[in-house]
Amino acid sequence: MRCDVIAVGTELLLGQIVDTNSAWLGEQLAASGIDSLIQIKVGDNVGRIVTQLRSVLASADAVIMCGGLGPTHDDLTRDAIAEVMGVELVHDESVAETIAAMFAARGRQMSANNLRQAQVPVGASIIAQTRGTAPGLICPVQIDGVDKVIFAVPGVPHELYDMFHRAVLPELLRRNGDPSVIASRLLRTWGESESGLNERLDAIIEELDAVGNPTLAFLASGWEGIKVRLTAKAATREAAEQLVAPWEEKIRAILGEQVFGTDTDTMESVVLEMMRAQGLCLGLAESVTGGLVAARLTAIPGASDVLRGSIVSYASEVKCDLLGVAPGPVVSEKAALEMAEGARMRLGADIGMALTGVAGPTEQDQMPVGTLCVAISGPDGSLTRTLRLPGQREQMRQFSVISSLDLLRGYLRDRSVE
Amino acid sequence: MRCDVIAVGTELLLGQIVDTNSAWLGEQLAASGIDSLIQIKVGDNVGRIVTQLRSVLASADAVIMCGGLGPTHDDLTRDAIAEVMGVELVHDESVAETIAAMFAARGRQMSANNLRQAQVPVGASIIAQTRGTAPGLICPVQIDGVDKVIFAVPGVPHELYDMFHRAVLPELLRRNGDPSVIASRLLRTWGESESGLNERLDAIIEELDAVGNPTLAFLASGWEGIKVRLTAKAATREAAEQLVAPWEEKIRAILGEQVFGTDTDTMESVVLEMMRAQGLCLGLAESVTGGLVAARLTAIPGASDVLRGSIVSYASEVKCDLLGVAPGPVVSEKAALEMAEGARMRLGADIGMALTGVAGPTEQDQMPVGTLCVAISGPDGSLTRTLRLPGQREQMRQFSVISSLDLLRGYLRDRSVE
Repeated sequence: MRCDVIAVGTELLLGQIVDTNSAWLGEQLAASGIDSLIQIKVGDNVGRIVTQLRSVLASADAVIMCGGLGPTHDDLTRDAIAEVMGVELVHDESVAETIAAMFAARGRQMSANNLRQAQVPVGASIIAQTRGTAPGLICPVQIDGVDKVIFAVPGVPHELYDMFHRAVLPELLRRNGDPSVIASRLLRTWGESESGLNERLDAIIEELDAVGNPTLAFLASGWEGIKVRLTAKAATREAAEQLVAPWEEKIRAILGEQVFGTDTDTMESVVLEMMRAQGLCLGLAESVTGGLVAARLTAIPGASDVLRGSIVSYASEVKCDLLGVAPGPVVSEKAALEMAEGARMRLGADIGMALTGVAGPTEQDQMPVGTLCVAISGPDGSLTRTLRLPGQREQMRQFSVISSLDLLRGYLRDRSVE
Repeated sequence: MRCDVIAVGTELLLGQIVDTNSAWLGEQLAASGIDSLIQIKVGDNVGRIVTQLRSVLASADAVIMCGGLGPTHDDLTRDAIAEVMGVELVHDESVAETIAAMFAARGRQMSANNLRQAQVPVGASIIAQTRGTAPGLICPVQIDGVDKVIFAVPGVPHELYDMFHRAVLPELLRRNGDPSVIASRLLRTWGESESGLNERLDAIIEELDAVGNPTLAFLASGWEGIKVRLTAKAATREAAEQLVAPWEEKIRAILGEQVFGTDTDTMESVVLEMMRAQGLCLGLAESVTGGLVAARLTAIPGASDVLRGSIVSYASEVKCDLLGVAPGPVVSEKAALEMAEGARMRLGADIGMALTGVAGPTEQDQMPVGTLCVAISGPDGSLTRTLRLPGQREQMRQFSVISSLDLLRGYLRDRSVE
């Protein structure tokens, strides 16, 4: 089955907004075994939207249109779909009532414009809105005697994500003559390249190829690590999950601690959760990352349970005065350890972690760009490491965050085992 | 003139990489008065690339193809272009020599694959490579008797940016029968909405509409502020710049200090430069932003001249113990000022700046989500402000960074005036 994507909006063509929706949809469709072969951006022009819609529907079985469902005269997705379907747009009173009720609940007046969002092509069915005011649409259409379908969903990412999983994907699978549901499991890994993982999982990949269900895919996500995704189809969600489970176990047996989490876990959330479970709090000392480790940890609600704070010691004197680092080269394991101990004491934390290194553009203390020294100091002793990370400045700093948190994960794991 | 964009690569359709190139190209083309009406993503399949190329060339005068110029069998842009041009691919010895020389300079062996990159459609001309091994291509083509052009550039962003400005845009302008060159000036603003700016610049926009050259556009960039762009065309770069200059002056006269920088300036770079010029150094105390202000300042090479460090005091005890904040509500101007003074002293800085607030998801100290208290303490006295910022957690934190740096900019400006 083939489902293409059309993102609608002049702002996308002008580069004011980057279209991330179609990439997200492509990833979701691929995980469900559906091809997405052409993805198009088109502006707010009904003639051009119609042309592109006809063009993709000539080959694709389905198309998902994102955006252009708002209340203004620029929002033309409904009009274009009606034209391609060869039908009128009619007022849907139940949609109008829902929109009016949403405005009333927020204590705001609904403008007449908003009733545009209650216009529905004849023959289309509604995907109920959850958060925004625009409902989605499922629009069956015959192209050269073949039954196809146009989906229209809002361009606002969280509304799109919700409608895709709730209504679009089930309808695609139903049309695919496939009553099955999908279950997938994402294993988050850190510490090995994609080709390295591929090699280690070689036998499993071969077995899976023979079985055909579940399927396995690697998703390389830069400084977020590499994701290994298992996707299974079955009659029920439970059955699909049961198909995935033994393979997850086999993969975990091979990759061991390289799997740091699953699904929506991040390295930050995993480390915070381990600290919380062990009843420990963390103090940081950051030089090369300039506050990025603390900023990423505190992006997660509830981080204050665990993170006492961070001393960003960018100037060498701050390292000495505030953290008690002895004079000498600051890009060294010795300095990192002194920083970690200083942070632990100064911030009243159970565990101190420190990062010092060279982000570039030039070397420092005769250490090349990409050098990272990490130290962890805690009640069960300390740990220091020197790593060589790839990339210039921003990339190197981001790799420093995940690499250091992964070391902390190891420290906490060893501690809990003892 | 109309120039569409085709981004080539199966990884784009699978959502492994988000196509940011076409958005960037759309922005550049719009700034030069060239329409980009359709932008397409297509996978590594020569038949489908050819179909899409023919489809856009039916209406567009030009098309820029990004990606698919690498050395492997998946890189099919050259083949597709040759098919649409109706010509053969031939080996270009000068390109081959350049590639061989690049490998030699890096002390690496060139594999036979790499010679694919020396294949050129008959009639095409070369855009010399600067950094990568793939040259770009300018490929004239007749479609229904009309002269059109296909450009091929690498998908690696910095190579694409370079080739676009060096070769693609000049060729588009030449074909447009327009020997003029473009000069543009970006005024970075903070502190007013797009509609507010629009209203204040109303008379100027009307004048510019009448004149037609330069043109003015607003680019809303979220927590980076709103950019006002003036773009002029003239026979020489100098003449174009002279056309822009008086309008920039008029706009600055109206917007005053809301213009914080130009072109590649950021709020971070502007504030660092003002501090540097005044010979001052900065110490931060961050609570709500959790290190984000320091992380963003230190993303800029050379920030160590100015930034001593940051004390991320996430736990209330750290605010008291390390920064000397008196007991009481921590989301208050009083606490912010004590934090700023503590940071200034502890970090040995000339100026201390502190941020405390509520990022959510829940309120704190009876203050609603979005509350930000900022304080600045320096040799010429102190300043405190309470702001209400939009958005949940991440958005609120990012708005906090630019809002607080803008306050610091005001503090430094007033200081230098005295």
